Amino acid sequence: MIPDILLTNICLPDRTGKQPIIEDCCIAIQGDTIQQLGPASQCTTLEAKTVIDGQGQLALPGLINGHCHAAMTLFRGLADDLSLTDWLHNHIFPAESRYVQPDMVYWCSKLAAAEMILSGTTTVADGYFYEHQAAQAFADAGLRAVAAQGVIDFPAPGVPDPEKKITHAAEFLNKWQNHPLVQPAVFAHSPYTCSPETLVAAKELSRTENTLFFIHVAETEQEKDMILGRQEDSPVCHLYKLGLLDPATVCIHGIWLDEQDMDILAETGAGVVVCPQSNLKLASGIAPLQGLLARNIRVGIGTDGAASNNRLDLIREMDICAKIQKVQSLDPVAVPARKVVQMATQDGASVLGLGKTTGQLAPGKKADIILLNLDTAHLQPVHASELPVYAAQGSDVQTVLINGKLVMQDRKVLSFDLEETLDQVRQLAAQVKKDQMKIPA
Amino acid sequence: MIPDILLTNICLPDRTGKQPIIEDCCIAIQGDTIQQLGPASQCTTLEAKTVIDGQGQLALPGLINGHCHAAMTLFRGLADDLSLTDWLHNHIFPAESRYVQPDMVYWCSKLAAAEMILSGTTTVADGYFYEHQAAQAFADAGLRAVAAQGVIDFPAPGVPDPEKKITHAAEFLNKWQNHPLVQPAVFAHSPYTCSPETLVAAKELSRTENTLFFIHVAETEQEKDMILGRQEDSPVCHLYKLGLLDPATVCIHGIWLDEQDMDILAETGAGVVVCPQSNLKLASGIAPLQGLLARNIRVGIGTDGAASNNRLDLIREMDICAKIQKVQSLDPVAVPARKVVQMATQDGASVLGLGKTTGQLAPGKKADIILLNLDTAHLQPVHASELPVYAAQGSDVQTVLINGKLVMQDRKVLSFDLEETLDQVRQLAAQVKKDQMKIPA
Repeated sequence: MIPDILLTNICLPDRTGKQPIIEDCCIAIQGDTIQQLGPASQCTTLEAKTVIDGQGQLALPGLINGHCHAAMTLFRGLADDLSLTDWLHNHIFPAESRYVQPDMVYWCSKLAAAEMILSGTTTVADGYFYEHQAAQAFADAGLRAVAAQGVIDFPAPGVPDPEKKITHAAEFLNKWQNHPLVQPAVFAHSPYTCSPETLVAAKELSRTENTLFFIHVAETEQEKDMILGRQEDSPVCHLYKLGLLDPATVCIHGIWLDEQDMDILAETGAGVVVCPQSNLKLASGIAPLQGLLARNIRVGIGTDGAASNNRLDLIREMDICAKIQKVQSLDPVAVPARKVVQMATQDGASVLGLGKTTGQLAPGKKADIILLNLDTAHLQPVHASELPVYAAQGSDVQTVLINGKLVMQDRKVLSFDLEETLDQVRQLAAQVKKDQMKIPA
Repeated sequence: MIPDILLTNICLPDRTGKQPIIEDCCIAIQGDTIQQLGPASQCTTLEAKTVIDGQGQLALPGLINGHCHAAMTLFRGLADDLSLTDWLHNHIFPAESRYVQPDMVYWCSKLAAAEMILSGTTTVADGYFYEHQAAQAFADAGLRAVAAQGVIDFPAPGVPDPEKKITHAAEFLNKWQNHPLVQPAVFAHSPYTCSPETLVAAKELSRTENTLFFIHVAETEQEKDMILGRQEDSPVCHLYKLGLLDPATVCIHGIWLDEQDMDILAETGAGVVVCPQSNLKLASGIAPLQGLLARNIRVGIGTDGAASNNRLDLIREMDICAKIQKVQSLDPVAVPARKVVQMATQDGASVLGLGKTTGQLAPGKKADIILLNLDTAHLQPVHASELPVYAAQGSDVQTVLINGKLVMQDRKVLSFDLEETLDQVRQLAAQVKKDQMKIPA
């Protein structure tokens, strides 16, 4: 059968490690799936309905952003360099209660999708309110997503009555059954904003519906102390005793973990997503990544939202993820580039329950592929196949395929009208700015 | 007089802080100098020999890279994720002794110049061997530079007889008098690779010739312990007692400093350049930047060489410089974006003795200007004028002027043939790769 798309002339990482990359390779795609890949000489077909010449470009599996609040692009740079309490209570929570509405979530999540696609992300795990609109934005953008509806004990955008939070989440799960790109899930905000009853009910719902359960956990020292005070347990221990930890639970941040917490995560098979840039900017701390990896806990990498990063760029995130671990342990060998690439691809996919679907370039996997332009001043010469980690930048990604569809080619987003999205977000931002001007300095 | 170049339609940061940026501004350039700038309504001329429309672009002073070994682009990614000793002694020193020759320094420094220009750097402080060739590369690339000839007690590229190191440096200084872009200087490698006699002679030479004196100092804990063992002093104390510290001395890295060291730096007026990414990747540590700034010590930011970063991108460096300080002190208010921009522009210029020349957009300063494209998915909406720090990436820089000359426009390097440089570096790298293949894994 003639493939639908054939990527020719591309470079692939050399898995034998003898050389950094192998030139003159091909990837054949049939429908949404990778059919075959390897040196052109070994490919059984050099014809296709669409042939894309990837001269000078390195093919990699699309990156997996394990944690995002996509709609928060509206608040990018609105409140930088503030204490966490000031940031949350005087800026972010008021801004959210004022500006988060269905249209805002749709357009600002779509802007986030563009930023992610333009920097090589092909799958995002998102959590927010009005998540139906976020899911719709990802579907329209052609971005693979796990979209999780927020659950919290306070009145929230779209959920004015906290009593209805679980019903609301259940309705959301129901709406997104069997979509080829978007899987629905539940996001319980945190152990300090959700009561034990809420946490149990939210996990129960996700178990019944066979979806993922996300939760921010052990992000700050204050949270750890608060839960210790309330529950006489660490945040992870608290979740464990409530029966919330299993392989379908994803713990976001995971910074203030002790040895016992990590043992629990290992024992229960729960996944973790670290968000290094957000954790640095908000001064939350540095996740004990080496302890997690030593226990074979599955760990992905996330950007968090644009208000606390301020980028949604996995390439930048990989670089810092590796470097911050090295300096923390004063060991330059710690968390090598190769491992970080794996975290941002196959390990991240596994954490999201998508290990069979994406995260690797291999026959039978969905065609989530990025092409990185190597012919630039900052990527030459090429001595290592892990060059994306320490040398590349988001804009080196030239072409992106998701689920076998070309969503970006030669830096142009094809799956939707980016200009329209930018215009819509600018209009929403104009109101935020107008209100900001009224605040006395 | 009609200006030579007029940048129109640009945005400028709002210095009053009332809004992030002011739209519809102009900058008029006469010869190598900024003549006037501000809102178009206040500009006395709207004509020029060359008019550049900067619609949707933010003008900023060109960035100052306070520390680089430009020629090391040849070794980018050659030896990642290794211990410092392994990296230096088994990879970098052997590679340098084998591959560093005049042609290599010229072409690889020129590649570095391209990378820096393409990410908004308009001034670099470089230190290497065969520095004459590096200086020539910067001059040919149109990049402002302080080029410093290396001084070390061992046989080095171009200086096989260490006895001649000072004579060699003196000849270099002599060759680069009165160049409009390149100022020569002296780079004593470190207190652990230069004897007290060498250090004193090198500083004496730079004093006589009225040039800067650079030195790597307090980069690693091992260095600190070594100098303590040999001299019974901290590295900074050692330099102080030798009379090396004054406002024309630039201390690179400055990580393992105690309170007394910082007091000495403040008292003597010596400058410091921190290199956060290199220090993270090599696991050297985190500079006590807040202690330095609290003492009003002038501090710039540098990338170090491409073998230890692996980028020469000041925009990336600013982001991490701020974030790493926040997490180290667990204080998100520490080292705000505004201060980091100042370090990468006017403070960096001051450290390099170029405070009157560059580092600010103001009438009378040299026209070292970068235009940042704001119309991208990852920079919208614009709520803060310091958005380059947390949100921008090198490739957002659209246009670069140095000393009144357009060296890059719409992402195309105009000052030299980048393709020729890439070809030359690829040829040099091919030999390195060939030799690497012979090394058994």
